[in-house]
Amino acid sequence: MLSQRRLRDYGVKIGKLEPGILNSITDVKGVKVGHKTLSNKQMQTGVTAIIPHGGNIFLDKFKAASYIINGYGKSTGLMQLNELGTIETPIILTNTLNVGVAADGLVEYMLSHNQEIGDTTGTVNPVICECNDMQLNDIRQKYVQKQDVIEAIQTASSHFLEGSVGAGRGMVCYTLKGGIGTASRTILLPYGSYTLGVLVLTNFGQLPDLSLNGRSLGKELLQETEENVTLKDKGSIVIIVATDLPVSQRQLQRIIKRSVTGLSRTGANLANGSGDVVIGFSTATKIPHHKNNSLIKLHIIHDDDLDIPFKAVGEATEEAILNSLMTAEAVKGKNGTSRPALSDLVKKNAITL
Amino acid sequence: MLSQRRLRDYGVKIGKLEPGILNSITDVKGVKVGHKTLSNKQMQTGVTAIIPHGGNIFLDKFKAASYIINGYGKSTGLMQLNELGTIETPIILTNTLNVGVAADGLVEYMLSHNQEIGDTTGTVNPVICECNDMQLNDIRQKYVQKQDVIEAIQTASSHFLEGSVGAGRGMVCYTLKGGIGTASRTILLPYGSYTLGVLVLTNFGQLPDLSLNGRSLGKELLQETEENVTLKDKGSIVIIVATDLPVSQRQLQRIIKRSVTGLSRTGANLANGSGDVVIGFSTATKIPHHKNNSLIKLHIIHDDDLDIPFKAVGEATEEAILNSLMTAEAVKGKNGTSRPALSDLVKKNAITL
Amino acid sequence: MLSQRRLRDYGVKIGKLEPGILNSITDVKGVKVGHKTLSNKQMQTGVTAIIPHGGNIFLDKFKAASYIINGYGKSTGLMQLNELGTIETPIILTNTLNVGVAADGLVEYMLSHNQEIGDTTGTVNPVICECNDMQLNDIRQKYVQKQDVIEAIQTASSHFLEGSVGAGRGMVCYTLKGGIGTASRTILLPYGSYTLGVLVLTNFGQLPDLSLNGRSLGKELLQETEENVTLKDKGSIVIIVATDLPVSQRQLQRIIKRSVTGLSRTGANLANGSGDVVIGFSTATKIPHHKNNSLIKLHIIHDDDLDIPFKAVGEATEEAILNSLMTAEAVKGKNGTSRPALSDLVKKNAITL
Amino acid sequence: MLSQRRLRDYGVKIGKLEPGILNSITDVKGVKVGHKTLSNKQMQTGVTAIIPHGGNIFLDKFKAASYIINGYGKSTGLMQLNELGTIETPIILTNTLNVGVAADGLVEYMLSHNQEIGDTTGTVNPVICECNDMQLNDIRQKYVQKQDVIEAIQTASSHFLEGSVGAGRGMVCYTLKGGIGTASRTILLPYGSYTLGVLVLTNFGQLPDLSLNGRSLGKELLQETEENVTLKDKGSIVIIVATDLPVSQRQLQRIIKRSVTGLSRTGANLANGSGDVVIGFSTATKIPHHKNNSLIKLHIIHDDDLDIPFKAVGEATEEAILNSLMTAEAVKGKNGTSRPALSDLVKKNAITL
Repeated sequence: MLSQRRLRDYGVKIGKLEPGILNSITDVKGVKVGHKTLSNKQMQTGVTAIIPHGGNIFLDKFKAASYIINGYGKSTGLMQLNELGTIETPIILTNTLNVGVAADGLVEYMLSHNQEIGDTTGTVNPVICECNDMQLNDIRQKYVQKQDVIEAIQTASSHFLEGSVGAGRGMVCYTLKGGIGTASRTILLPYGSYTLGVLVLTNFGQLPDLSLNGRSLGKELLQETEENVTLKDKGSIVIIVATDLPVSQRQLQRIIKRSVTGLSRTGANLANGSGDVVIGFSTATKIPHHKNNSLIKLHIIHDDDLDIPFKAVGEATEEAILNSLMTAEAVKGKNGTSRPALSDLVKKNAITL
Repeated sequence: MLSQRRLRDYGVKIGKLEPGILNSITDVKGVKVGHKTLSNKQMQTGVTAIIPHGGNIFLDKFKAASYIINGYGKSTGLMQLNELGTIETPIILTNTLNVGVAADGLVEYMLSHNQEIGDTTGTVNPVICECNDMQLNDIRQKYVQKQDVIEAIQTASSHFLEGSVGAGRGMVCYTLKGGIGTASRTILLPYGSYTLGVLVLTNFGQLPDLSLNGRSLGKELLQETEENVTLKDKGSIVIIVATDLPVSQRQLQRIIKRSVTGLSRTGANLANGSGDVVIGFSTATKIPHHKNNSLIKLHIIHDDDLDIPFKAVGEATEEAILNSLMTAEAVKGKNGTSRPALSDLVKKNAITL
Repeated sequence: MLSQRRLRDYGVKIGKLEPGILNSITDVKGVKVGHKTLSNKQMQTGVTAIIPHGGNIFLDKFKAASYIINGYGKSTGLMQLNELGTIETPIILTNTLNVGVAADGLVEYMLSHNQEIGDTTGTVNPVICECNDMQLNDIRQKYVQKQDVIEAIQTASSHFLEGSVGAGRGMVCYTLKGGIGTASRTILLPYGSYTLGVLVLTNFGQLPDLSLNGRSLGKELLQETEENVTLKDKGSIVIIVATDLPVSQRQLQRIIKRSVTGLSRTGANLANGSGDVVIGFSTATKIPHHKNNSLIKLHIIHDDDLDIPFKAVGEATEEAILNSLMTAEAVKGKNGTSRPALSDLVKKNAITL
Repeated sequence: MLSQRRLRDYGVKIGKLEPGILNSITDVKGVKVGHKTLSNKQMQTGVTAIIPHGGNIFLDKFKAASYIINGYGKSTGLMQLNELGTIETPIILTNTLNVGVAADGLVEYMLSHNQEIGDTTGTVNPVICECNDMQLNDIRQKYVQKQDVIEAIQTASSHFLEGSVGAGRGMVCYTLKGGIGTASRTILLPYGSYTLGVLVLTNFGQLPDLSLNGRSLGKELLQETEENVTLKDKGSIVIIVATDLPVSQRQLQRIIKRSVTGLSRTGANLANGSGDVVIGFSTATKIPHHKNNSLIKLHIIHDDDLDIPFKAVGEATEEAILNSLMTAEAVKGKNGTSRPALSDLVKKNAITL
């Protein structure tokens, strides 16, 4: 997408399943992603918005589930998402200390598009996820404003940048520059072809642990470079999974839980300080906000058909993480701190991937 | 407390255990409660703050746990609270659409008192709970400002008002005026005397279900009054439990889960639209933010000693809910809507409790 | 059912919804219940079997969910039931130390009816729940044999006894004789009439806490009788919920969780030593064991229609518990210990219910 | 241990932390493991017992936790283990259809050693885990008898065999012969040196997915050998974690959850049909069965010290799985089916590890 050099452009393929056309979460029809990047000296942060569908998501919800790999994080909105099994807003990613502002901005966006919220119907459940970008961004300044959330939503597209953009601007992954990454997989079942896409916000891990498709790339880089490695793992990862598979919430939760296999294969130890959160939604069925005095008709797959989706989410998560590293550009931020780009290190050290 | 007429002033005692001196969550030493009430025509809302201890709660955390009775709600901060088993901020209660603003205000308060947050140490996990006060309050206006959060914290005291105050200003419970209520119980164990206190924000239920100490008061009121009863149960309840019992997080979670017994005895059906959330903390041990390279020493009770705390939390929750009803004053708000006070109905109909 | 005098025969009605024809879990079409009672001096125990439908439940499973109110118990089979959202065997209730034998017996029963299990398809997940009947039964003798499980299954019927029968033979509830009880409710929705039934195995609580429809009957009995009250609450309750409502597993879990409201209203404190477990299943859709390379078609209700099922399960649970007490006959067992029947105490003391 | 050739004997080291002296779960002081292997034609199954300490585990319990990676399994005892946070019996591993018999045998063992169970105190919670060995073992025959459980317990030692022994006799892992494996890691903290050990029962995965320390060994074997590969993944893994780290149950649960990183790195996709269960216990503190009217004194580590234990459990799980493969001998069983040993394939194909 958008002319960035991604993992497959280096000749590396993760897993056995085929990616979708864009190898992106936006291969799932209707899903869009938008960024608002804030970059100026001490300010290296931003907002990323994932739009489940182009219509009114409050009135026509999607089934959704979340899974907490490690709960050392400040995401909001997951409780109701799990209880009701639906998502009714875009998903907003930003820095940790701006979750409140982002929630407020998202609420205002929803109110402006739905006059009935808080008037003739109930309230709305904003979903905000975050990572802590304080290494590169002066997070105490809480740079993100409500308007940034709305702009990220408004600029959403099926083509979007990865790497040091949006909420990923200040993120650090395996001691290198991290940020936004995406990938997708095609799932062939006897009764149809489906797509599962993953978008990650990466901000975790230590360089010595980095594994690229089984190769201990982190150790190699440590030996060949003179990078100053910060060894404290205080990061997080947010994993967003979209699919058009017709699944129940229970099945969706089983699927997204498997993202941990791909995460682990990149070298993650799911560190104490890393808030690792997964949210998934299925675009197969719209759940109406208003009941219409009839039963809701659904189709779901048989659980015995879950093995391919399980493999797909693992592969796509692994590749999305690596894409975030490969596409990220070096960023210099708070107090002159900088994080290098993996692509630059690979080029500088003439490493063949 | 503060000259309001509470349930026991009508001669009604709930359960078998003795309350603490104030019959309040503030019987647990160090706990304080503050309100900021916003009341003017369409605006009938506010903020209530529960302060776990008078020191720096970020540096000296308390063990904490949460339990979700029904997750149709927008509380924030529970994920990390459960993962790490600690609370590191005051607990803020407000209306549903102001959770973002309240979180932002609480973050600013914490930043201003802790220079190291987001600089030399990690971030902070704000805990905000909410109920939807849209029946009496024009919730779409999001009246609560960051400064209101800070004022609620700053005015916290061991003596505080119940009823239609703070976050309780616009709340409706069993179709009557609800809001803030509290109660406590003394727990005698062979090795010491302990206290458990409960504070509730009540905004749930339908009048026909209201049960007062086993008596079907709701049905009586329906017959004897001409109150216009809104039968749609779209409410919620927030239950905050404080105790000085030395317990593990697992034990604390077992304790707070039993609040549902008291809730049920007032007539609650835990309706679909009611976000019912419990948070508990123990003041027995401070968990330091910074590790000091030694083991943490703890005392905990034996699980066989939990039966009295289990009974205590059920009794205190039931009484706190009824106190919120007995102390609430009638409120007239959005578009002229009003909710009557139970105390007024009791007096008007000469009901002997 | 079967000429026992139940709560409604005393003129007491619980709640507002109407019961089904039998006021029994067997009002849900296809559900059957069978007992094998073992009663001889020290031996006061047995087996109760709940049959979800009359066909091959392994090949045609029902959606199912479980909820743990208090996990101090030894039930088996709940993990897979929740993961896959299905039940594939009858549910067996028995005493705590016979769970292993009962599981073994149920496995043999399933093997004999399904030649493919463990051969051409996978294994089977037996579901066994239990309470500890050691007050009246010499539980160390493990009297239950595999054949008893099979006989309980084979004698299952839509008409069955309550009280001191089957697994309920040795159970003690609120210090009185407990055991098996059942009740049901009719659920009217705009698109159809549905039934929800509850069966309980009651073995919990202390007499002073017993509440009958809001009345402190336990305290009255304490004053009027000279019963020797064992005050240690070491019991448990198993709650089985059946319904023909078309619901997802998530919705089913939300429904069965509300059984705690009825349980609480009888006076329960959910004591430390009480293993309180709920299992629910929906008969609306059969989930095939073998996938047939097509999507599964489902209908489910809208979550906004859950309030009546929520109320139904609370009412039916409360009434089922009270039915277990009203129908139980006095039992004399281990070392001459005996527990009185509530019906006898009511008659002896001329108490009008 | 016991002269088997393990992974490190081939020169392969997993991870960065040092193993304990035996590189075994029995490096945790007091832990013992025993097997009873049943091998004769159609019968290829058995029992493995893990003994937490040499004393009376019912009277002096250990803190324990469990975590369900995938709940498609029939383990029993986990509910109470999590609710009370303790383990009070040995842990028994066996085949799926013998869980009932094994539970019954373990109950009888516990009864014979504790006269008070079911008499003057409550009952006992047997913990049984299982995998489905039906590929090599005629599982429908339920060969395991109660006495086999007792013998496995009685023969437990700190030195024990890995591979095709005990419960591992009939297990198949990555289409090769699997079974029992173990490994350990030493954890250095500022205030002491601790040990964490893992024992696995491996019965999952497909050969193409097998990864050995980052190397796609499964694909290599597929190319170089003519092994008939069964591609259906219907297996499971049981992971037992022992440590002498002083941790709370919450912390222990966080630790054992990280075993999934090591599992994932061997190539696992956590398939639908694979019941993946983890149980952990800490030997640091004994929790008395009987309360003695005083508080229990504990030491626990700070959560910030969890990163090394997190890494340790990942590494030890990965190595334990690979040890199960390296030590397993080929087994021929049901209907002439056989599974090859990885060690034989490596030797036959002259693969250098």
